[in-house]
Amino acid sequence: MGIYPSLVTIILVVISVKRTQQAAITTDFTFSTIKRETNSDVNADSGVIISITDNAVTTNVPDTTTNDPHGTTTDTSGITSDHHGTTPESHRTTHGDTTHSDEAHGGSGHGRYPVVTFNFEHVAAPYVIALWVLLASLAKIGFHLQNRLASIFPESCMLIILGVLLGLIFFLVNGLHHSLFYTLDATTFFLFLLPPIILEAGYFMPTRAFFDNIGTILTFAVIGTLWNTFAIGLCLYGLIYGGVIDLNLGFLPCMVFSSLISAVDPVAVLAVFEEIHVNEVLYIVVFGESLLNDAVTVVLYHMFETYTEMGQEEVQAVDVISGTVSFFIVGIAGLLFGVMFGLLASFVTKFTSHVRVIEPVFVFVMAMLAYYSAEIFHFSGIMALIFCGISMKKYVEQNISAKSHTTVKYFMKMLSSIMETIIFMFLGLSTVTWNHAWNTGFVFFSLLFVFIFRFIGVLGLTAVCNHFRAIQINYVDQFIMGYGGLRGAIAFCLVILLDEKVIPEKQVLVTTTIVIVYFTNFAQGITIKPIVNLLRVKKQLKFKPSLNEEINGRLMDHTNAGIEDIVGTYGSSGIRER
Amino acid sequence: MGIYPSLVTIILVVISVKRTQQAAITTDFTFSTIKRETNSDVNADSGVIISITDNAVTTNVPDTTTNDPHGTTTDTSGITSDHHGTTPESHRTTHGDTTHSDEAHGGSGHGRYPVVTFNFEHVAAPYVIALWVLLASLAKIGFHLQNRLASIFPESCMLIILGVLLGLIFFLVNGLHHSLFYTLDATTFFLFLLPPIILEAGYFMPTRAFFDNIGTILTFAVIGTLWNTFAIGLCLYGLIYGGVIDLNLGFLPCMVFSSLISAVDPVAVLAVFEEIHVNEVLYIVVFGESLLNDAVTVVLYHMFETYTEMGQEEVQAVDVISGTVSFFIVGIAGLLFGVMFGLLASFVTKFTSHVRVIEPVFVFVMAMLAYYSAEIFHFSGIMALIFCGISMKKYVEQNISAKSHTTVKYFMKMLSSIMETIIFMFLGLSTVTWNHAWNTGFVFFSLLFVFIFRFIGVLGLTAVCNHFRAIQINYVDQFIMGYGGLRGAIAFCLVILLDEKVIPEKQVLVTTTIVIVYFTNFAQGITIKPIVNLLRVKKQLKFKPSLNEEINGRLMDHTNAGIEDIVGTYGSSGIRER
Repeated sequence: MGIYPSLVTIILVVISVKRTQQAAITTDFTFSTIKRETNSDVNADSGVIISITDNAVTTNVPDTTTNDPHGTTTDTSGITSDHHGTTPESHRTTHGDTTHSDEAHGGSGHGRYPVVTFNFEHVAAPYVIALWVLLASLAKIGFHLQNRLASIFPESCMLIILGVLLGLIFFLVNGLHHSLFYTLDATTFFLFLLPPIILEAGYFMPTRAFFDNIGTILTFAVIGTLWNTFAIGLCLYGLIYGGVIDLNLGFLPCMVFSSLISAVDPVAVLAVFEEIHVNEVLYIVVFGESLLNDAVTVVLYHMFETYTEMGQEEVQAVDVISGTVSFFIVGIAGLLFGVMFGLLASFVTKFTSHVRVIEPVFVFVMAMLAYYSAEIFHFSGIMALIFCGISMKKYVEQNISAKSHTTVKYFMKMLSSIMETIIFMFLGLSTVTWNHAWNTGFVFFSLLFVFIFRFIGVLGLTAVCNHFRAIQINYVDQFIMGYGGLRGAIAFCLVILLDEKVIPEKQVLVTTTIVIVYFTNFAQGITIKPIVNLLRVKKQLKFKPSLNEEINGRLMDHTNAGIEDIVGTYGSSGIRER
Repeated sequence: MGIYPSLVTIILVVISVKRTQQAAITTDFTFSTIKRETNSDVNADSGVIISITDNAVTTNVPDTTTNDPHGTTTDTSGITSDHHGTTPESHRTTHGDTTHSDEAHGGSGHGRYPVVTFNFEHVAAPYVIALWVLLASLAKIGFHLQNRLASIFPESCMLIILGVLLGLIFFLVNGLHHSLFYTLDATTFFLFLLPPIILEAGYFMPTRAFFDNIGTILTFAVIGTLWNTFAIGLCLYGLIYGGVIDLNLGFLPCMVFSSLISAVDPVAVLAVFEEIHVNEVLYIVVFGESLLNDAVTVVLYHMFETYTEMGQEEVQAVDVISGTVSFFIVGIAGLLFGVMFGLLASFVTKFTSHVRVIEPVFVFVMAMLAYYSAEIFHFSGIMALIFCGISMKKYVEQNISAKSHTTVKYFMKMLSSIMETIIFMFLGLSTVTWNHAWNTGFVFFSLLFVFIFRFIGVLGLTAVCNHFRAIQINYVDQFIMGYGGLRGAIAFCLVILLDEKVIPEKQVLVTTTIVIVYFTNFAQGITIKPIVNLLRVKKQLKFKPSLNEEINGRLMDHTNAGIEDIVGTYGSSGIRER
């Protein structure tokens, strides 16, 4: 007794994990399954894994007491030949040899040579990806053909709505279980969907505006995010402690939540700000903040989550110091990784004059390596990508052929555009399929705090920054900076990464995050354009500088650099011109 | 007794399968592992799966009789924290939260907050891919910098040599087991490496030369491949039957082998012919043959393999008829899939004028869908891709913006170039790690037959084709056609797809295939350039046609089409001009 049922389980596990493996690229749902389906049965797709982690295999296994080991084997092949059957065997059915697995014979009688065979499984992963990309692209075309809708709603909102509709369809047709395959999972997001967008942002970064405003950007990214995190977290905990919000959430989980919800999201900001064409300073301050706050978010999220796991009473002074130290390491190391790989790409492209056609490879591969290398050590991958893009651009542009550079730029934009589309669509999809846990008080106060502390932070920090700025940020711009602080997919992915065992109230946090993401993207995203027009926010210059302006500008820069050289002080002109 | 050791096994299975899953994209080695390691133990990486299929799990499990279920759980976490530990948990450790798995704590004392953490597993798959692509690109640059080497060896040969060297290094450093991770596996090859090359071939197909010579190409692709398959297969079987070759190989396995070794390989042909610049007719005939013979190869390989599984005595007349029917279906359906998706891409790109940046997406996605859709039904994916490329090009070129088209063309060439590099490098790698089974007689006669029947086929078929051709193919061209009949990675992947249970002598076939691939690529690939120069083969025209020539050519085409319209007969001009 005992060993054979377990054998069956092993085989079931292998089958389901194999199935998982096939779908791994698109829909790495193992994680979410583990979280949500603690009471799933053995037959559910891939639900078996949880049973193991929960140490509950024995309860699910039928207690057959057969003594014949071959009986079990027969069982297995029975499972193999069902509709979803993907034993290790099916991995071989790649190029014209389905007949290994039983299902292939299905069509044309047992044992006869089949004229046409059908086997979807072996191309499932790339096929599903291709279909999603196609759908995303078609959606994009469709929206742009609808001029009236496109003028009111930002594209991101329409994509979320499309995602929700698709989610409802999957929900109704397949039931909740199957729609699990189509949620935005964190692995796919952080490894494949996010990097192209950030790379594009870094590569096309208006470096001059960025470095001219780096002080303001850093102030908002670091101090602003810290302020938001602590203000939101402390106030929420205060209300929970005071009994205003009826939720059993400790201090540290509160801080974890506030750390992930505080950061302004680059993807959401990009999607909205691209359409409203505000002036460059305003754009770069908000967008730069959304990029550079990644280091802060990573550290705060990581820190509070670790503290939560350790337990509040276990946290010692040394942990707090470690946290503070890792703060600098995560950001600076990310930056260094980025610059290193960026310069490496610049160096390698010096030798490609004989093989022009592979030049774009280096740009993309080096950027990816920068990101993944930073992620290995849990440094800020976003910082790495941004600075990889910034540092390689000038050199790569000169080294590679004009056609290569067109391809690099165009393909980068294309990839980023598609990934953005997929992210918003998946965000919509994920909303439908999730088991929501609603807590009105928590949702309301989170939303309120997110909104007001953002404004307080912006007003306070701008007041400080304006002391050091030549060009003052006026109140109208400050309002847009506060109003444009959108939250997005990064927050969502971080909240679904939380461990339900450590934070049992995770579902509430997830639902609240979704509400905040939706609110900022819909309410603020839709109204920001009219407000920008109403307040007469200084717009982006539509015309290119004339030749005269350009020559004068360059002359001024050179003169400045010369004066700085003579005087012996080093300002931004020195760096810029040398 | 019994249940807990099995539980340990389940967890081990999950861990190893998870590990497999992470590396799944690059190195889907499950298949090869199953084949080779029937006596592996539980602790070997991913070797567990075999134990299950071989129903030998029980013998490998240590028979501990602990009664405490939690004891087992503790065991698990012990396993998790080792170097390779990848439980389902580690899938969550994506963005700054390693601390869930025990290993993360390793660096900085138990329970303390770690300043820097290290977790390679969660980025392993894309990281390894990126590194391989980088290595391939660097290798390509390196070769082109070595002008002396590059003038003697074709790039493909040098890449194979590099692969062999890398293989030796892996072999010596890690031992055979770990080098399993770096073989050319059939799934990766057919799903990801091959399609970009074929798409590029189809998209940049010189359509005029292709359709002008379609008769000759089809003759070679269909009748030539059939001739080679049956001639080689029958002769080999004859020698085996007659006792000249000392090998226990039946008639049908012989035919399986000859079907996979008969087809000229497009990747190998492309690599070599790109460097020798022969005239367009010669090029298109050899290259066209290598592309269109895919349908024949798929059918013959599939057919003989199925027959082998059924057993020789089981094969009835109806099976042979089915085989012949599927012959036409596989080719024509592949073509139709290609044309369908090609026209779909052409249609969709009519509506992209508002979103220029995603135009290249459609070209690539539609082509991929054509290929994968054909593969689902085991139609010829190569045919689908070729005709998708041909049919979409004219329309897409007109619909999309100039920049989009540059990107499409450039990126296609880049992808194809990189994939080709990787294929040859992996081909070299796979040679070292495989357990070879050498059979001198079989290797010698296979090589001999491959060589001479190719020449006999070319001579005989050209004699027939020349009757119908306006421009005769002379003997020099015929020699190059015969000599340029290189075999390559497709043959290798098809032979490793064979089932050792059905054909126990598989290893001999694999080794022989490798020898033939090496011989044709090295001996023929290196000498073909000097021979082309020696025989004064008509070279490709280097100059573009003058404006006058072009206008005259167009005028003639239009006139021809007009005359055909009036006369009422339809020749190639009619199709070309309308």
